[in-house]
Amino acid sequence: MMSTFTPFFSRYRPQLEALLQEILDYPILKDYPGMAAILRYHMGWEGEGAGQAAQGKRLRPMLLLLVTEAVGGDWGKALPAAAAVELLHNFSLIHDDIEDRSPMRRGRPTVWARWGEAQAINAGDAMFAAAFMALSRLQQTLSPNAYFRSQALFIETCLRLTGGQHLDIAFEQDREISFEHYWTMIAGKTAALIQTCAHLGALIGGAEESVQHAFASYGNALGLCFQVVDDWLGIWGSAALTGKSTESDLVSGKKTLPVVLGLARNGRFAQRWREGQIQPHEASVLAQWLIEEGVQHQTELEADRLTREALEWLERTELENEVMVALRELTHSLLSRQQ
Amino acid sequence: MMSTFTPFFSRYRPQLEALLQEILDYPILKDYPGMAAILRYHMGWEGEGAGQAAQGKRLRPMLLLLVTEAVGGDWGKALPAAAAVELLHNFSLIHDDIEDRSPMRRGRPTVWARWGEAQAINAGDAMFAAAFMALSRLQQTLSPNAYFRSQALFIETCLRLTGGQHLDIAFEQDREISFEHYWTMIAGKTAALIQTCAHLGALIGGAEESVQHAFASYGNALGLCFQVVDDWLGIWGSAALTGKSTESDLVSGKKTLPVVLGLARNGRFAQRWREGQIQPHEASVLAQWLIEEGVQHQTELEADRLTREALEWLERTELENEVMVALRELTHSLLSRQQ
Repeated sequence: MMSTFTPFFSRYRPQLEALLQEILDYPILKDYPGMAAILRYHMGWEGEGAGQAAQGKRLRPMLLLLVTEAVGGDWGKALPAAAAVELLHNFSLIHDDIEDRSPMRRGRPTVWARWGEAQAINAGDAMFAAAFMALSRLQQTLSPNAYFRSQALFIETCLRLTGGQHLDIAFEQDREISFEHYWTMIAGKTAALIQTCAHLGALIGGAEESVQHAFASYGNALGLCFQVVDDWLGIWGSAALTGKSTESDLVSGKKTLPVVLGLARNGRFAQRWREGQIQPHEASVLAQWLIEEGVQHQTELEADRLTREALEWLERTELENEVMVALRELTHSLLSRQQ
Repeated sequence: MMSTFTPFFSRYRPQLEALLQEILDYPILKDYPGMAAILRYHMGWEGEGAGQAAQGKRLRPMLLLLVTEAVGGDWGKALPAAAAVELLHNFSLIHDDIEDRSPMRRGRPTVWARWGEAQAINAGDAMFAAAFMALSRLQQTLSPNAYFRSQALFIETCLRLTGGQHLDIAFEQDREISFEHYWTMIAGKTAALIQTCAHLGALIGGAEESVQHAFASYGNALGLCFQVVDDWLGIWGSAALTGKSTESDLVSGKKTLPVVLGLARNGRFAQRWREGQIQPHEASVLAQWLIEEGVQHQTELEADRLTREALEWLERTELENEVMVALRELTHSLLSRQQ
């Protein structure tokens, strides 16, 4: 069955992709073809394995454009912001992959794995600058005031993203983190950008302050939930259990919600975790212990709570149209996803 | 003897430093004190060895503010741009130090040497975002159009910086590069930002197009010359020759102008260079060969040519006031510097 949001995505996608390509084809970048090729590879347009799968779902810009339309705005005017959030997301992926030593992303070698760390750091920086270039094109479609507001939001998001990432790296040193630290970390690392997508969509679409606030809060809840589901999949998703395509988050020692909850239980899982690194062959046993200790259920309760919160914020906008239907369905689909 | 530009620097410095501190004390950054501490350490305000020497000369923002005054503008209005170029410069230093594996900067351990690569990449990203935050404060002092023009210049400079750095890293693989490649690399890596400082100063100061162009061209020549002098010092400077505080650029294999010129001579130096990495004990002998082959002289001729070009561009502005006197003297002092 086709989702109600698919027709919107199909409408947005070609224009988004064209603008992204235009930004990364900017004359100055053409002066440095070697660097531009790295950026185009990462975006999934070039090199071995290029194509839809390598490009990812472009979820953040799609969300931004949906919200613009939901509040009655012209999504064409929001395209520069949509391109900017996607470039910002991709800049952060290039750098995160170096920081986490991830060799693969979307089925292909990561930038640092292919070109080395130095070129990857630098290519990420260029992608970061390109994000600001995309954003600056909003000048052409918005009033100066609306542009300045959008820009302030965008810059604050960059600071939150790096703040969350700082905590994530810092927590690698610790074997345990608190429930509170967990939420602070994912608020910056994951939710900040998704919140900004929804907020920018409402702002650019011309919604009044209270509606902008509702969408920002929706985005925050959606972003937090997105990470909680990601954490669930990292332990109980089929890939994690079989180890076929990714290693269980239990082995990499990531501070995910199930780990934080499992430590609070102080049971068999907590005892083993505190003894030191989990070996690949133990992952499925520990995943089972977490289920028996009620942690899987509790993780699902957190995801449900955040989903309800997200949907309630959508209600509070008091908007009712076909785009809102699509947004609700998108929310459900993100949270019941299998990967 | 005190230079004519010293009183200007003394006047600008406290306000510049105060604005830089204010930007890096932004509320969101306070939410991540661990990350903010890294940024404050790198800026030379905090941690072991903090102080004037660790802060560096803040040359780029000083140049920007001098040009603003030279064209009759209010330097106070240009402060956000001055802070932005300094933050951008420092972001690039944090990342360059990782890319070049430099353990020390301004007499202190570099960020990656102290906090590890992952935190250093991320702290550099936060500094990059802070640069855009500083720039965005120009909204308060400029017309929207002047702001948009400044922003476009700034973003283009970020792309040129990363482009130049890309070439620098790429050339590490090659034992030889051409004269043409050398100029392309340093135009991006070094001259682009210095050019933008002079250009932004004139633009924000309200100079007409032709004067802006003259200052931009001045900045470009100054920036290229700055790098050529840096290259000279990296081989024949007292530190390079004695090896006391830095290793000769000949040992690290950097593609500097003397190396490019020496290879073109095809003499003893070129022969030895092509045989493989230079050992520390050989550095002073090779430095001497380059002198005998006329390369030191040729490097000085290039620096003289660029200095003349820079001063000619200052002439073409047809401005005559005490700030122009200071700018000329600053130009001379940068090019006859000993370190």
